[in-house]
Amino acid sequence: MNAKAVKEVLKAHVGRAYAPYSGFPVVALVEAEGEVFLGVNVENASFPLSQCAERNAVAAMVLAGKRRLERVHVYSPKGPIPPCGGCRQVLMEFGGPEVEVVLHGPEEEVRTTLGALLPLAFRL
Amino acid sequence: MNAKAVKEVLKAHVGRAYAPYSGFPVVALVEAEGEVFLGVNVENASFPLSQCAERNAVAAMVLAGKRRLERVHVYSPKGPIPPCGGCRQVLMEFGGPEVEVVLHGPEEEVRTTLGALLPLAFRL
Amino acid sequence: MNAKAVKEVLKAHVGRAYAPYSGFPVVALVEAEGEVFLGVNVENASFPLSQCAERNAVAAMVLAGKRRLERVHVYSPKGPIPPCGGCRQVLMEFGGPEVEVVLHGPEEEVRTTLGALLPLAFRL
Amino acid sequence: MNAKAVKEVLKAHVGRAYAPYSGFPVVALVEAEGEVFLGVNVENASFPLSQCAERNAVAAMVLAGKRRLERVHVYSPKGPIPPCGGCRQVLMEFGGPEVEVVLHGPEEEVRTTLGALLPLAFRL
Repeated sequence: MNAKAVKEVLKAHVGRAYAPYSGFPVVALVEAEGEVFLGVNVENASFPLSQCAERNAVAAMVLAGKRRLERVHVYSPKGPIPPCGGCRQVLMEFGGPEVEVVLHGPEEEVRTTLGALLPLAFRL
Repeated sequence: MNAKAVKEVLKAHVGRAYAPYSGFPVVALVEAEGEVFLGVNVENASFPLSQCAERNAVAAMVLAGKRRLERVHVYSPKGPIPPCGGCRQVLMEFGGPEVEVVLHGPEEEVRTTLGALLPLAFRL
Repeated sequence: MNAKAVKEVLKAHVGRAYAPYSGFPVVALVEAEGEVFLGVNVENASFPLSQCAERNAVAAMVLAGKRRLERVHVYSPKGPIPPCGGCRQVLMEFGGPEVEVVLHGPEEEVRTTLGALLPLAFRL
Repeated sequence: MNAKAVKEVLKAHVGRAYAPYSGFPVVALVEAEGEVFLGVNVENASFPLSQCAERNAVAAMVLAGKRRLERVHVYSPKGPIPPCGGCRQVLMEFGGPEVEVVLHGPEEEVRTTLGALLPLAFRL
């Protein structure tokens, strides 16, 4: 997908996020092996059981039989936000430092890589 | 979906689970507002960042704009297993005690309800 | 510890909870092998990385070399609240259905058991 | 505490870790406001409910009324390992990029900072 199409898809799904506790909706889209997969955050009354958008997009990717992550897009209507440390670790399970990470706000974009976001990553 | 079709779908997706650390694949299917959504477990080198099948199925449901959980199916090739406590809490966010939970093994099924699995549930 | 002493300890630690996102402090005390261990909830800007009071009390117990959980107390200044499903699972790792669970509010108490809170528990 | 004393304390607690599923014990020690706090990893049959050593040490710090993290030590008997992304996020809640992070193996040490481990951190 081209950059403009990605942003349209991200924006179109922000209303799907379930974020009643934070009021902070997030949408993620991952590109893997020629396909794209979406996720939104899903919060829980017990905060530790909340699920981030990025991890949910990875779960959709895995369900589809894909394992090689190539690019990640994260959208917040409040402006570009980076993935939390937990999501960086989840992304690293299916990619390496070269994975591109694009942080989207309504208009702007910040481009980085997974290697830049999670240096010296923990791996088993 | 009828019970036989559900079990076929569950079995067909067991190979999609990413469970290299536990060797314990799980597939979940949730029924909500006339549609079905799937999830498999997605483990991580950092165990706390692993994601259960049931929660991933709920994330797919939420992404699709559905919020009212009606029935949950969980499949393990090793025989029926109940959802962990964390997943019970996630399911309760989108349903009540009346949600049906069906635990599937390769041949057998155990039927219960979310109310039976998570009595006196925590809610905000 | 007697019931009155437990409630005093619980109340005395409520200010230690770090709950800036929920505004919902919780204190837990676990009894194991003749000793008691405390925990408070520790929230995080990324909600899934928050830590419940009950799990933190269990971590203190494990650090001290204790593995056999006997009784759990949970205190909320807003009145008795049950542990979330995730905490029930964590408690079950170190005890069985017979573990006593006491839910404390400022004045009142609700007594139950882990078996009543997490029937048909998932175990490996 | 001096470096040698820290390593002795770390080593002395490795047997306290509860890591039956990974076989990978970890001990963490955090320094905050002139005191030190320990944590070991506490795994769970449901992997996502496992608790890392670093987060448990932070929980002990918070329980003690401390909020300003200064230095973190992580010990693995298999050699120096970095904190997972989730723990980096938890540490960042109570400190900034200047927090020192020391990764200990039985003999060797790797010194880094939280800012180096979690650049462009997510914050609310």
